[in-house]
Amino acid sequence: MKDLKGKALFAQSGGPTAVINASLAGGITEALKNPSITGVLVAANGVYGVLNEVFYDMQKEDEEQLLALKYTPAMAFGSVRCKLSTPEKNSGDLEKILEIFKKYDIKYFFYNGGNDSMDTCDKISSYMKKAGYPVNVIGIPKTIDNDLAETDCCPGYGSAAKYVATSVSEVALDASIYTSPLVIIVEIMGRNAGWLAAAASLSQVSGYGADLVYLPEVPFSAEKFISDVKKVVDKKVHCVVAVSEGIKYENGKYVGDDSSKTDVFGHTALGGVCGYLKSLLTAELGVKCKAIELNILQRCAAHQASKTDADEAYECGRIAVIKATEGETDKMVAIKRTGGQKAEFELVPLNKVANAEKKVPLDWIDEENAWLKKPFFDYALPLIEGENPVVYESGLPKFAKMKKILFKL
Amino acid sequence: MKDLKGKALFAQSGGPTAVINASLAGGITEALKNPSITGVLVAANGVYGVLNEVFYDMQKEDEEQLLALKYTPAMAFGSVRCKLSTPEKNSGDLEKILEIFKKYDIKYFFYNGGNDSMDTCDKISSYMKKAGYPVNVIGIPKTIDNDLAETDCCPGYGSAAKYVATSVSEVALDASIYTSPLVIIVEIMGRNAGWLAAAASLSQVSGYGADLVYLPEVPFSAEKFISDVKKVVDKKVHCVVAVSEGIKYENGKYVGDDSSKTDVFGHTALGGVCGYLKSLLTAELGVKCKAIELNILQRCAAHQASKTDADEAYECGRIAVIKATEGETDKMVAIKRTGGQKAEFELVPLNKVANAEKKVPLDWIDEENAWLKKPFFDYALPLIEGENPVVYESGLPKFAKMKKILFKL
Repeated sequence: MKDLKGKALFAQSGGPTAVINASLAGGITEALKNPSITGVLVAANGVYGVLNEVFYDMQKEDEEQLLALKYTPAMAFGSVRCKLSTPEKNSGDLEKILEIFKKYDIKYFFYNGGNDSMDTCDKISSYMKKAGYPVNVIGIPKTIDNDLAETDCCPGYGSAAKYVATSVSEVALDASIYTSPLVIIVEIMGRNAGWLAAAASLSQVSGYGADLVYLPEVPFSAEKFISDVKKVVDKKVHCVVAVSEGIKYENGKYVGDDSSKTDVFGHTALGGVCGYLKSLLTAELGVKCKAIELNILQRCAAHQASKTDADEAYECGRIAVIKATEGETDKMVAIKRTGGQKAEFELVPLNKVANAEKKVPLDWIDEENAWLKKPFFDYALPLIEGENPVVYESGLPKFAKMKKILFKL
Repeated sequence: MKDLKGKALFAQSGGPTAVINASLAGGITEALKNPSITGVLVAANGVYGVLNEVFYDMQKEDEEQLLALKYTPAMAFGSVRCKLSTPEKNSGDLEKILEIFKKYDIKYFFYNGGNDSMDTCDKISSYMKKAGYPVNVIGIPKTIDNDLAETDCCPGYGSAAKYVATSVSEVALDASIYTSPLVIIVEIMGRNAGWLAAAASLSQVSGYGADLVYLPEVPFSAEKFISDVKKVVDKKVHCVVAVSEGIKYENGKYVGDDSSKTDVFGHTALGGVCGYLKSLLTAELGVKCKAIELNILQRCAAHQASKTDADEAYECGRIAVIKATEGETDKMVAIKRTGGQKAEFELVPLNKVANAEKKVPLDWIDEENAWLKKPFFDYALPLIEGENPVVYESGLPKFAKMKKILFKL
């Protein structure tokens, strides 16, 4: 809808990345100077803050701290994991959001998250349209998983990939110091899409890195795995294996499955894959083995963020505001890579992104050698290019400190 | 012994650090231009390479790569974990080393390692003296554990401390995004000395960091631990705990003990402390808990090395060569801190360092609050100061690539 005038509301959702705050920085700084926007609010903890009317006033924040968000990991104003009920079943939440949008004169709503969040964003947008309330709703992508549809890549992925590739390269150097055989298994996040585990292969560009990479896209065979590792150890003595937490057997069962734990979206909570593979190799090959779970380190390592990624995350936030004030709604900002570190930004319909999941193309995977093919390297190397500048104080990153002053009507 | 002329032999031993190669860079570049030194060799895999006459010729290496060692983690020419038998029991190894020193005209021997390595270094030095063979032997310190006696700090510690503090700060930001209670336990290396786990407290200087720190120097009480965590969760909702892998109960038993595994020095192989504490907290407090083992990442993270530390590591190698060619022997280079990032270098007797172990002073530990007192911050903050410059290529650190050309007589 064109010529809307009112407040802009930002909210973030899902798991953090090293650069999701960069999107917020881009969005807020643009919104603060935009003539169509009369006030800039950020909801505490995503839709939770929206439903509970906990809003922070961005006009009260220092510009220096807003810019420091560009290299501050996690969500400066909190996140949430909750799925709105569908309007058909229960529109209570959506009704409440409509009332709150009216009450606070919210005319621009920006939701920053992964595919679950784009679903939330889509639901809010559709409900507002049906109710006849004028608000432009734009989704801002983020996820280290890189699994969002309709965009060439996702902000957050490049930085996590850079951290993974750097760490695996360092680990490979560490693994090589003794003369005795050693296998190091590095477990990397990624529930169904292997993008981040695949990034471990980039380490080899430095000359030191992973030897084998296992992704959820290819059914896992314990026999082949043992034989792959044996071949590397026989040839090179040391072997570095990268595995996705989401690797599955032919029958679809997760290798690291613990079916007693599921998250609120019904996904199985994973973990322990590397521990299992370590005991498997120790038993079958009698080789010394170390298991490293990169855990949440890989999604919050802002000190090793990719400049390409951080800049694109910032731009996604900025473009979202520009496009919304130009009248666009019900879209997500998508990245279209145009060669090397260059990218353009476009809008794609939210409902095409919501709950869809993009996996690593099978023809990019060298299944036989548990490795990635050239198209993956061509795709991923530009995304890890450049070191995001971090300001240091007393030897540590000087992360943003927000005032978090509550907005009151 | 003064006025020696002959070859210099370097060797590295024990576990890696992010900057042990920086000491090698300092030593080799100094040795290559020193008139008393007729050739510069590095033994493959420490004393293993010495005993097996596997020597690399440093005159064949490119200067650019030797300088890239300043930010390349682990040991570029390999390491070893082996304890020489005492001369009283079996001098076979030492006799062999004497013959090899004679054969290759080794007049300067530099051994770079921790307290076990200083013991090896001391044994070699004493044996050569007794045998009347002229060789100046100097130890070059390294260890992320920071537990060497007779030196104010150890090269390797500052970088590991910077990585730990940075990562814990990022993890603390990550931990704070949801409204529900969460405890994150970060397990940090350090068998008997808690220096590195203590470094987790530095994270709070950034404003985001650990809430509680547990060191091996203080007997561990599960009851107090549970009560400490409960207090933080009740007050702050989120709690970040840093624990040393070496925490012990009052009776001396390691919390993460697995008595079936011991390393070649007879130390118990540790691990799994954070997993145990996670299950303890889940059971006793019913709180959501994540366990992160920093594992070998903390000792090889050259991408986040401290400039102060890397510069001092380089200087330790350089000073070792200068002092040895001035006639010093049977000593280790020690660091004397003289305020802020400033340090002086002095020599201390090897036998005072061999097998000794320096722990965190008890009066630097705030046992009641599971925290560190001001003297620790005053001591450790200068050590993490500055970011060691790393050269990047294709988005990844461009680590040194050595030619490793074997030296033949």
